[in-house]
Amino acid sequence: MNDHIRFDEASWQLLLLDQRRLPMVEETFVCRTVNDVVYALQTMVVRGAPAIGVTAAYGCCLALPEVQEFSSWRDELATRLRVLAEARPTAVNLRWAVDRMQRVALSSKADTPALLRKVWLAEAKTIHLADVADNQAMGRFGAVLLRDGDRVLTHCNAGALATAGYGTALGVIRAAVEAGKKIEVIADETRPFLQGARLTAYELHRDGIPVRVACDNAAALLMRKGLVDKVIVGADRIAANGDAANKIGTYGVALLAKAHGIPFFVAAPLSTIDPLTATGDGIPIEERPAEEVVSMTGIPIVPENVPVYNFAFDVTPAELISAIITEVGVLSPPFGPAIAQALSAYSHSSTYSKG
Amino acid sequence: MNDHIRFDEASWQLLLLDQRRLPMVEETFVCRTVNDVVYALQTMVVRGAPAIGVTAAYGCCLALPEVQEFSSWRDELATRLRVLAEARPTAVNLRWAVDRMQRVALSSKADTPALLRKVWLAEAKTIHLADVADNQAMGRFGAVLLRDGDRVLTHCNAGALATAGYGTALGVIRAAVEAGKKIEVIADETRPFLQGARLTAYELHRDGIPVRVACDNAAALLMRKGLVDKVIVGADRIAANGDAANKIGTYGVALLAKAHGIPFFVAAPLSTIDPLTATGDGIPIEERPAEEVVSMTGIPIVPENVPVYNFAFDVTPAELISAIITEVGVLSPPFGPAIAQALSAYSHSSTYSKG
Repeated sequence: MNDHIRFDEASWQLLLLDQRRLPMVEETFVCRTVNDVVYALQTMVVRGAPAIGVTAAYGCCLALPEVQEFSSWRDELATRLRVLAEARPTAVNLRWAVDRMQRVALSSKADTPALLRKVWLAEAKTIHLADVADNQAMGRFGAVLLRDGDRVLTHCNAGALATAGYGTALGVIRAAVEAGKKIEVIADETRPFLQGARLTAYELHRDGIPVRVACDNAAALLMRKGLVDKVIVGADRIAANGDAANKIGTYGVALLAKAHGIPFFVAAPLSTIDPLTATGDGIPIEERPAEEVVSMTGIPIVPENVPVYNFAFDVTPAELISAIITEVGVLSPPFGPAIAQALSAYSHSSTYSKG
Repeated sequence: MNDHIRFDEASWQLLLLDQRRLPMVEETFVCRTVNDVVYALQTMVVRGAPAIGVTAAYGCCLALPEVQEFSSWRDELATRLRVLAEARPTAVNLRWAVDRMQRVALSSKADTPALLRKVWLAEAKTIHLADVADNQAMGRFGAVLLRDGDRVLTHCNAGALATAGYGTALGVIRAAVEAGKKIEVIADETRPFLQGARLTAYELHRDGIPVRVACDNAAALLMRKGLVDKVIVGADRIAANGDAANKIGTYGVALLAKAHGIPFFVAAPLSTIDPLTATGDGIPIEERPAEEVVSMTGIPIVPENVPVYNFAFDVTPAELISAIITEVGVLSPPFGPAIAQALSAYSHSSTYSKG
């Protein structure tokens, strides 16, 4: 499950496994233009903060107009990149990837569009490969937090499909399994998009890791029954103080975990940390179309003209998080200083630059 | 919405509005035999503890064999009533109603099947009408707990459709609205059966009471945003100490309400209180078929061969409950003594008898 984001150089197309139709249908969504990429991001053909970052990097390549000279295209390109960076508001990896591509463009000596295509494709590939490597590192660091026999609850999909491959939260689980530990996973189904039921169950079942699906509202009972030893989730944006935005419902799971004395871990690469956002209050929460809630598999489940809430994310306050697992190590509370130190120590590494 | 359980004397049939297909289709499910009633209960054609009780009372009428003499049919009837009483394990109203019908049979002087038909039909009608009256009383007592402008979150459907009419939790809301208060309701969609999205939204919208649907996992965020002033839910069984079993997810909502300092009310008739069960640990929790979770509107949403959890109820410990609203008044903590007093004071009333 590491070819779900694939760039075809010959046709200059980005090929995405369409996550809207999994697990029943495995279909490729082809992006030929940056507008296709924006559409794919907005309709969740591809989702998950790190996967959004990688997709956006390739999206920049598709934003390059097919011209021979730089001359007048810079404004047009800037516009396209801005639209791409703003396709979704919450995951900071989107802006991070586009910013990084723009910095590379400036620092490279690419003085023709053809050259910039080469520079950007190379950079996108680097981001792509680095993401997998980062997830594997995250897995190694995080695996020690899981014990043989642990039953781990996860919310949404922070797996291979949410990244370039291997996964953040599910990467930690994969690494623990690879280290010989017996791990069982409970996947919250994660309404309304059902990332847990559809995607987490799909990829873990494929890998032979035992997984059970539970409706979101069952988490409290499962914890009370002693069926949950740990919780691990991903993140879409982590503020400088450790407050973590993630899929709607994560905050509730964190409160329930605390009430039952269950450790609650967040696994995310440094690219998900936004040092410019001081606390979770500053993280924009996307509201998505009512359509996602009022019908399922195309059939209405809510009476006509009844309004709904459809906030796509919530913010888990740092005090509910036991540890943040990153590719450079496990950060412990208080997260403010730990995050500042990690960012400053690794901001010049090859796989991470936020400068 | 008070004719969704209707007994047709001429044809000796029980007519149920099929709640599995609401809100899109309004269809009547016809019960001719007690087995039809058992099927209707088990597949949730009708659900909700008080509605289950009323349905079971009419079910007893359908359990009477069409014979002229008592002679050898008593064993057969006892068997039928036992199967009916065990159709679902959690809601105590089911057993309560069947027990009550059996006591009435014993105490009546009905010495022919024809006479017992009359006695039982009259008793079933009494239970039916008393339930509506109880809900209206519950509404009057509970309405004072709601303030003008309150935004009230409810889980599952504890409305007209879950009772003989008017509702328990929704009855309190209806009574507050009738008293001139402006109340807005947030209906948790309540996976997997979607009672909130389908039934609560349906009946409140019909009554012109503002309602919004939210996925179950949004409750924590909505509370954090200050969009929830009170929580009111129904119950399927209340133990002698006040622990309350209700639809899966209720316990989680109660924990989240506590974490946000939001009052959490349970509205239920005395028939839902089971003095024979000391605490919530003694309440049997029904596990329902995986099918309810793995597909929606007939279309699979979980990969094949992935197991699921499908506990239908959970138990909210008494300490998370601010008050229990009954037809004889609002019970305050500590609930053990309050419940004992209410049961002893009202056990001889016309609408309630459990002794």
